[in-house]
This record gives sequence, structure tokens and C-alpha cells, in this order.
Amino acid sequence: MIRVNPNYQKLQSSYLFSTVAKKVKDFQTNNPQKPLIRLGIGDVTRALSPAIIKAFHEGVDEMAADETFKGYGPEQGYSFLRELIAESDFVSKGAKVSAEEVFVSDGAKCDTGNFQELFSQDIRIAVPDPVYPVYVDTNVMAGRTGTFVDGRYQGLTYLDSNPENGFVPSPPNHAVDLIYLCFPNNPTGACASKDDLKKWVEYAHQHKALILFDAAYEAFIRDPALPHSIFEIEGAREVAVEFRSLSKSAGFTGTRLAYTVIPKEVKVYDESGNAQSLHEMWNRRHTTKFNGVSYPVQKAAGAVFSAKGKVESKALCDYYLENALIIRKTISDLGYKVSGGLDSPYVWFDTGMDSWQFFDRLLNNQGVVCTPGVGFGQSGQGYARFSAFNHRQNVIEAVELIKKELSRS
Amino acid sequence: MIRVNPNYQKLQSSYLFSTVAKKVKDFQTNNPQKPLIRLGIGDVTRALSPAIIKAFHEGVDEMAADETFKGYGPEQGYSFLRELIAESDFVSKGAKVSAEEVFVSDGAKCDTGNFQELFSQDIRIAVPDPVYPVYVDTNVMAGRTGTFVDGRYQGLTYLDSNPENGFVPSPPNHAVDLIYLCFPNNPTGACASKDDLKKWVEYAHQHKALILFDAAYEAFIRDPALPHSIFEIEGAREVAVEFRSLSKSAGFTGTRLAYTVIPKEVKVYDESGNAQSLHEMWNRRHTTKFNGVSYPVQKAAGAVFSAKGKVESKALCDYYLENALIIRKTISDLGYKVSGGLDSPYVWFDTGMDSWQFFDRLLNNQGVVCTPGVGFGQSGQGYARFSAFNHRQNVIEAVELIKKELSRS
Repeated sequence: MIRVNPNYQKLQSSYLFSTVAKKVKDFQTNNPQKPLIRLGIGDVTRALSPAIIKAFHEGVDEMAADETFKGYGPEQGYSFLRELIAESDFVSKGAKVSAEEVFVSDGAKCDTGNFQELFSQDIRIAVPDPVYPVYVDTNVMAGRTGTFVDGRYQGLTYLDSNPENGFVPSPPNHAVDLIYLCFPNNPTGACASKDDLKKWVEYAHQHKALILFDAAYEAFIRDPALPHSIFEIEGAREVAVEFRSLSKSAGFTGTRLAYTVIPKEVKVYDESGNAQSLHEMWNRRHTTKFNGVSYPVQKAAGAVFSAKGKVESKALCDYYLENALIIRKTISDLGYKVSGGLDSPYVWFDTGMDSWQFFDRLLNNQGVVCTPGVGFGQSGQGYARFSAFNHRQNVIEAVELIKKELSRS
Repeated sequence: MIRVNPNYQKLQSSYLFSTVAKKVKDFQTNNPQKPLIRLGIGDVTRALSPAIIKAFHEGVDEMAADETFKGYGPEQGYSFLRELIAESDFVSKGAKVSAEEVFVSDGAKCDTGNFQELFSQDIRIAVPDPVYPVYVDTNVMAGRTGTFVDGRYQGLTYLDSNPENGFVPSPPNHAVDLIYLCFPNNPTGACASKDDLKKWVEYAHQHKALILFDAAYEAFIRDPALPHSIFEIEGAREVAVEFRSLSKSAGFTGTRLAYTVIPKEVKVYDESGNAQSLHEMWNRRHTTKFNGVSYPVQKAAGAVFSAKGKVESKALCDYYLENALIIRKTISDLGYKVSGGLDSPYVWFDTGMDSWQFFDRLLNNQGVVCTPGVGFGQSGQGYARFSAFNHRQNVIEAVELIKKELSRS
């Protein structure tokens, strides 16, 4: 008899964004005439920029002739792209990373979700709370947690992110083995300073722990004092992996390209305490379970790192950052406590009521979609997240509606 | 201390095709002047067809304007594509499949590799031998096997494919829970008849087992008596999942698009024997760990199912099938026993020596790359696989070189 992975039964309802999508669909079915503005899921709305489109077409044209056609590429990504990424995103910004340490993939969701496969079943895991649900759900599926009790999975160490710590948690006072961090943070919009990250790198060295650093939103950092990569921190190359994505930085949510950096120095250990190469392990996983990213997409991605592409991508992020500032200012001016919206496309604020209650009110009364904070974890209860990824006119209309709703409550 | 998944240490050397690639690279470094013809990895060489290229460009153009831009799509794939697949590949050919049962992904390698995650750790697994290494390696990584002893992982049931059974194994005489089948077969090129598949479907019903049916090569079937889908067999919708891919049928190895069909009737069981929906479980997995296929790639894939696209794709497969026939005839005429090459792009034959020895001889003496049969499993020892995916001129030159080498031995 074919028996299922029993851990799936521990999962709470469906994936957060699927639940939001269902509620939105129901609203639209019941209110076919009402306009709807989506500031929920962090999904970009503006076209790919001209440099990217040009390269994308060129990539497609190469596929049209036998002489230039590309079949299977290297699973890790084409060298031209890995070299551009290492140079543009790291070396030129003072972080040592080589092209061979860059693994190209079709999404940071896949990579952050799949990475846990490399580790033992009984490692101790720390996740921020609130947290991007993928880190948690994939470990639940793998059987590394107990059941869900009072809003939390047993066996995980939750790192509370709250106004007291500026939504940047410190290392716990006990040992954990695997730590998920994300800065600029999804969902709180908070950024970690170099000193904050130094504490984590020191902690990882002390406990032989590994940091999985999600930097999917680094392109939104404008404050020159803030680190873009964990590899700007001394010693991080021995204890950290970094996830990057073009989804938000270059509008690739529907085009699909991300990359993961695994320094060759990162050591992980077998049961006898012998060091193993994490780089080699991921390479084995990546070549066995993945077949590389579509060639024209890699060609398009290369253009993001051209002189023209860099200017265009920065302008795109600036546009969304202005949206974020408009949302932040609106809510802040009404006297609400706000995090994010600076150096981040997310605005996080305390609604003063239950998160789903606020979500339902804002949707049903005003036709505006947010993401309920409690969907990201217990510490997100009472909060809501607004995404700045939308057209300016929609954001301007949305903040008027948000203002109306917040004045009612 | 961050400890690794100990199962990775059970894996034998590196992934087969990485080893072949390394040997080829070494040969090229040592013989920079010598020509090389690749009939090893099954990688297409001919350009995407005009209908596909046109749609691919249109998809890119849609990404160039805010009004038509696509961000995150449904993780399961766009409805337009799922509907085309269900209608063209199944319904119109007499197999009942609905669009909702089709999950679009970036590769059958990913899907066949990831699917095992849905099941309990202690299920009993049967794989053919020889076998596409991904089925085995992903279960090794997940801890469902013992160590590698005498060419086989302990705990797996190997289904010998040999000349006696025409390379189509029958169900074992004991109960297993999960069965991997692939027809037309990679690597043997053998095809299963409807009667062969009926036996497996009956077996699965009898033992409440699940069949994972890899039909990545169905587009090469020309014999009207052979089934293209396991869903042509009565009762299969309760006990089977089918994997399809555009990689070989439409030249998508570098473009990336595949799909997996999970009928809503398929039942799997929890520890108490209660039935669960496999469709729902995969949907949960797919939405949590995957973010959909690149939109322009889905648009291009849609064109494969247009009237023009169907004609072009058939012509492409016919071209490779002619190559296969040339290879098959050459080897057969020399008196060697050959399988495949009819209704299949692979030719499989008994070399009369150790597989790697033949691989090395053919590479070093003639500059022709094959895939050593033993790389697919113990029962492949002594065999070699030739892929028909190459340009005609290369195949014509290769068969002369193969003839030369086989006449030497």
C-alpha cells in the first residue's frame, strides 16, 4: 500500500498566498463591479526594461537556427551569466565571490525551499517570526518539526521580530544549527546593519551553525551604511549561503531567474564531525534534480548586468521605493507605528486588530488587498503588510482607501 | 553543529552524465585537433520550429509593455496551456485527462526527482534495471535505500530488463508500493504494449501501489498498436501518474517545459489506511516549492499544440527517428543484438565487453561519445546506448566510425 509522507498532515491549511488569492477571488465573484487594488503579494507590475527585452529576443533568435541553438546548458547556469553575477553583484561591491560559487536557478522560492534537503533530519532550526512561510513549510514537509500548537510548530526556535528589537532579532542564547535570515526583511521591511550581521556570523562560528541568508530584496537598499550581502561581513564565507533573485530587482517574477551563492569555504559536518563541502553537496543535488534555466531567460538576465540594464533596473526599484514611501507616510501620518518602506518595498504596520479581520475589512469595505501579518507567524498577529509593487496611480488611489478604512476603525 | 543528510554519502560517484562529460572534456583537452561526435546524452540539436519561435517572441513582447506584462503566474501553469495539453495530448487520443489534472513544470527531471517527497520513508520501491538514474538517486538522497553493494542499492526491488523479456519487465511476485516505469524506455528504447501495461495496472490495483509512468519519449511512437499514455489503460486513472516533456518532442531541452498528469481519482493512504488525494498533495508541494514556468516559455509551449506546431514537431521527431534507424541498422547488420531505434530515439546494444571499456575505446579511438549501459544499472553492464539526437551528417559519419570500432573488437 502506497503510504504518504505523514508530515504533510501537520501543514496548516494552505499556503498563505493561496488563501489570500481565494478570498480575493470570492470577493470578485460577489462584487463583479467593484474595483480592486492589489497590495498583497509582492508581485511586480511594470514591464521588463528595454535592455532586457532586447537580449531576451536575441536569445529566442539563437534558438531559431541550428548553428546557434542551445540544448541542455550547464545545470549551474551558463558561465557568462555566473561571471556577470559574481562581478557585478559581489566583487565590484567589495564581497569576494567567484563565478563557480554562483548557482543559477529558476527561483529563490525553489532554492530556499530545497536547501534543507542537504541536512540531517534532527538539526535544530531557527526562523524569524514573522517569516516567509516557505522556510517553515518545507521543513515541516521534511519532518523536522513537531505538530502545530498555539500558532507554532514544535521543535523550531522562533526568533521574535518586534518593535523592541527593531524587527531584527539577535542570536538565541542556546545553540541552533541552521538559521534562516532575510534582510531587507520580508514581511517587516526591516534592514540589518553590519553590526547585526556580525553578531550572527560570530554566533555561527561559535556553534558551527549555518546561516541561510535571503537577500532577495537587497536592490532596494539606498542607505550606504547598510550591507547588501552577508559576504561583506568578515568570516561569513565559512558559515553562510546567500540567496538572490531578479524577481523584484529586475521585474522577473513571471520570467523566473534567481541565484544562490555557496562559498567553497563553507563546511558542514557528518555524524562523526568530519567536515564536508556544502558547495559539492549542493552541486550534486542541483545536477541530479534540476536541468538549468531556459537559455533565452539566462540571456535576458545577462542584460540586467549591462551598463544600460543596471540603470534601468535601478530606475525600476526607485519607482517602487517611491510607492513604498507614499504608503509608509500615509499610515505613519495617521499615527500608526510603521516598519519598512525605506530600503525595502514592504510596509509593515500594527493594525490594532486581528490581522485577518483587518484583511477582510480592507478587502470588503475598500477593495484593497494587503497580506495579513499573522500569515507570516504568531508575532505577525495584529500586523498587515503592504507591497509597494504596483502602478503609481493604483498606489495613490489605494492610500486614500486605506486612509478611509483606518479612519473608520 | 550543522550536520549533513547522511544519505548523500551512499551516492555512487557523480551523476552518470557528469562523469561522461568529464571524460569527454579530458579527451578534448588531450586531443584538441580531433573531431568529436556526441551520441551520448539525449540532447536535441535542431532549432525550435517557426511556430514556436513566433509565439516565443510574442511572449517576450507581452513582457515589454505594462498593459500585457505578466508577473507571477499560477504555479500549476496558465490555463490556456493546461487546456491545450489535456485536449491535444490526451482527450483527442482517447485518454480522459482534464486541464486541472495537468501540472506544468520546468522539467520532467525535476518532477520525477521531486515526486518521491510525497511518500512515507519506508515504502517499498521498484525500479527497472537499467534505469534513468534520477529515479534511484533521488530516493537514495531521501534515505529510502540501504548502501550500494555489488552494483545495487539495498532495499530497492530491481526489475531486470533483458533480452529474455524484451526489455519490458513484468510485475514482481511480491508486493511493492511505488513503481517507476518508462516507455518508450530510456535507455533500452523498448516499448510496452497495452497488454504489458494492463498487467502493471492490475498489479497496482491488487497491491494499492502507485505507478509513476515516464512518457517523455511518447512522441516517437509510430506503431499504431502501441499506447502513448498509461491512461489509455482501463483503471489507470486510479493508480498512475504520468510525466511528459517537450524536451525531446519539440526540442525544448534548453527551453525547459514539462508537465505531470495526476488524475483526481488517484488515492494514496495514511498510516491508518485512510485514502488521501495525491492531486491535492502534489498541488501543496508544487505551490510551496515552485513558482511556475517563465511566461514566454509557456507561450512558446502553447504553439507546440497549434496545427502548425504539431506538423513541425512531428517532422522534428521523424528526423531523429531516421537517425535512430540508421544507427540501429548499422549495428544490427554487424551481427549485434539491438533494442530500440524503432518508436524510440535510443539504440541499445550488447557491446560484448565491459560498458565503460567500450565507452573509452569508442571515445579514444574514434572520437564518438555513447553512454555506457552500466551507468544505468547492473543489468546494463556490457551494453551501450546511442542517442539519435544529432544532425544527420554527424550520424552518418558516426556510424562509419562505430562500424570501424566494432570491426576491430
